[in-house]
Amino acid sequence: MERTEIDNLGEFGLIKHLTKNIELQNVSSIVGVGDDAAIIDHFGKQTVITTDLLIEGVHFDLGYTPLQHLGYKSVVVNLSDVYAMNAIPTQITMSIGISNRFPLEAVEEFYEGVYAACEKYGVDLIGGDTASSQKGFIISVTAIGEVAPGAFVRRSGAKKGDLLCCSGDLGAAYVGLLFLEREKRIFVENPKVQPDLENESYVIGRLLKPEARKEVIEFFKENDITPSSMMDISDGLSSEILHLCEESALGCVIYEEKIPISEDMKAAAFKFEIDPTACALSGGEDYELLFTIPQSEYEKLVLNEQISVIGYMTDASEPAHIITKGGSKHAITAQGWNAFKQK
Amino acid sequence: MERTEIDNLGEFGLIKHLTKNIELQNVSSIVGVGDDAAIIDHFGKQTVITTDLLIEGVHFDLGYTPLQHLGYKSVVVNLSDVYAMNAIPTQITMSIGISNRFPLEAVEEFYEGVYAACEKYGVDLIGGDTASSQKGFIISVTAIGEVAPGAFVRRSGAKKGDLLCCSGDLGAAYVGLLFLEREKRIFVENPKVQPDLENESYVIGRLLKPEARKEVIEFFKENDITPSSMMDISDGLSSEILHLCEESALGCVIYEEKIPISEDMKAAAFKFEIDPTACALSGGEDYELLFTIPQSEYEKLVLNEQISVIGYMTDASEPAHIITKGGSKHAITAQGWNAFKQK
Repeated sequence: MERTEIDNLGEFGLIKHLTKNIELQNVSSIVGVGDDAAIIDHFGKQTVITTDLLIEGVHFDLGYTPLQHLGYKSVVVNLSDVYAMNAIPTQITMSIGISNRFPLEAVEEFYEGVYAACEKYGVDLIGGDTASSQKGFIISVTAIGEVAPGAFVRRSGAKKGDLLCCSGDLGAAYVGLLFLEREKRIFVENPKVQPDLENESYVIGRLLKPEARKEVIEFFKENDITPSSMMDISDGLSSEILHLCEESALGCVIYEEKIPISEDMKAAAFKFEIDPTACALSGGEDYELLFTIPQSEYEKLVLNEQISVIGYMTDASEPAHIITKGGSKHAITAQGWNAFKQK
Repeated sequence: MERTEIDNLGEFGLIKHLTKNIELQNVSSIVGVGDDAAIIDHFGKQTVITTDLLIEGVHFDLGYTPLQHLGYKSVVVNLSDVYAMNAIPTQITMSIGISNRFPLEAVEEFYEGVYAACEKYGVDLIGGDTASSQKGFIISVTAIGEVAPGAFVRRSGAKKGDLLCCSGDLGAAYVGLLFLEREKRIFVENPKVQPDLENESYVIGRLLKPEARKEVIEFFKENDITPSSMMDISDGLSSEILHLCEESALGCVIYEEKIPISEDMKAAAFKFEIDPTACALSGGEDYELLFTIPQSEYEKLVLNEQISVIGYMTDASEPAHIITKGGSKHAITAQGWNAFKQK
């Protein structure tokens, strides 16, 4: 494999090389890469901003994460936050810190993933920074979006009696992580053993190449639905439900049997002898949307198979809780991933 | 000194703790910290975005950089890029990655500097991320600003015959760095030797606590001046002049005697037996503004002592060059800091 040292290009050379083919797609992207700053004009709409810092060995493991997927995912997880405001992403900036253990070809692979995500979601890369790092790969993404004035949806707007809903299915990315961590341990012990992941493509795909729920936001728009509150599910359903309840000063009840879980995930979880519901509640990196709507909007949701009603909001006198399939009742506690401990 | 482990707070606890006293100052800051994303409304103006990734051991040395200054500087260097577009900064997002060698008190010190810069420049902290890092301190700042539609100034707008100007004085931060690096070496060799930096407060201050040139942009506005091109000087005058010439497809001539150099910097440079002009040309981190204006605007500039006319733009047939005090002529070459080699 070819190996071009990044030192040979220098900082400006590297940025130029990585951004030379950009063609801005959005009319709101007025000035892109190459000046002191980028210029955006959302023409009467409001601007949405979110940012994430991702660090090798903490947020991702290059032992089993292809760089192209990493680039794709770094973008998607930020777009997910923009959609979670009921907004449409339009631009990103991408900064990377890389040690000289990475050749140019590795950085190019990463950017292939970045550009693939930009193309799929219709966003422009308009800025960023490249820096050398003493150790590891560091990624900082800022995503920018637009929303009609006042049409954004916060975490704090849920009302008592609103239906609590989520998109897609939950917990699969976490089980995917378990497989990859297991294969890594096996590989370390015996590099000759071939990985056995053939039947796990769904759960592994959910971890390595997540998608943001663009089509859910489009569905809301087409059907004139405005959620009363919304957020994305990145740290596990439990943790996000508690945030939403806290911000809205409410409680809620959810039903275990209503939590959407895929057949592939269920089968995979059983291989580890763990409870699929626990994965959905406490796993992470689903990048689905959690939202509330007034009960009067229920009929509009029914046609969308991607959306599950999992419970409803109560007043705050009773904390968030779950009714299990067996009919017992438990308080929901946050066991989501904690960036400072486990992630 | 007190030491509170960050692990005890967790990621969400840390963010809450660090952002609990924020009061949004700008009418354009609609939603700040605490949701999936922040919301901004520049009400008919265009939005400016710039971002920087700063890594311990590459961009700063905590051996001689107080954390409060580091927080301040991390913000200011990004605001400088917003001003360099002829725009007014209004918001920032701040993400940090920290290893568990840093206690909460260290992070608080850093944020004191961040908030001091926000207050001084009238910007709101509206978002960010905290992550653990395996090694060192990592900072990612995104600065957001506003500018009347089309009133931004790019690097590419200079015209032949335009005057080439800069603000403030140049090269001091670089000499400040030389002093601090020297004291660090001395300290490593003999920790009992007291640092002798008493007379170097100007050059050291320029390195550790730079300011962005807000007042220059205000002066332009008050006097109805629109530079034809502009950028900030972060990598040394030579490097920036070459960028501006390349982007504007022009050459230029500058005069050594016109390059603004402070007496303090000159005296300090002589202690290292280095040429002050070389420091101004090839040092870095000045965060002054480099810009061009039509000759017809010259009279408007004269009253501002902070602005120096250092040369003028020529056509591209002759590359950028400098006329020395002795009258000889040299091509300007980029010896600015290179993030991948020396920084």
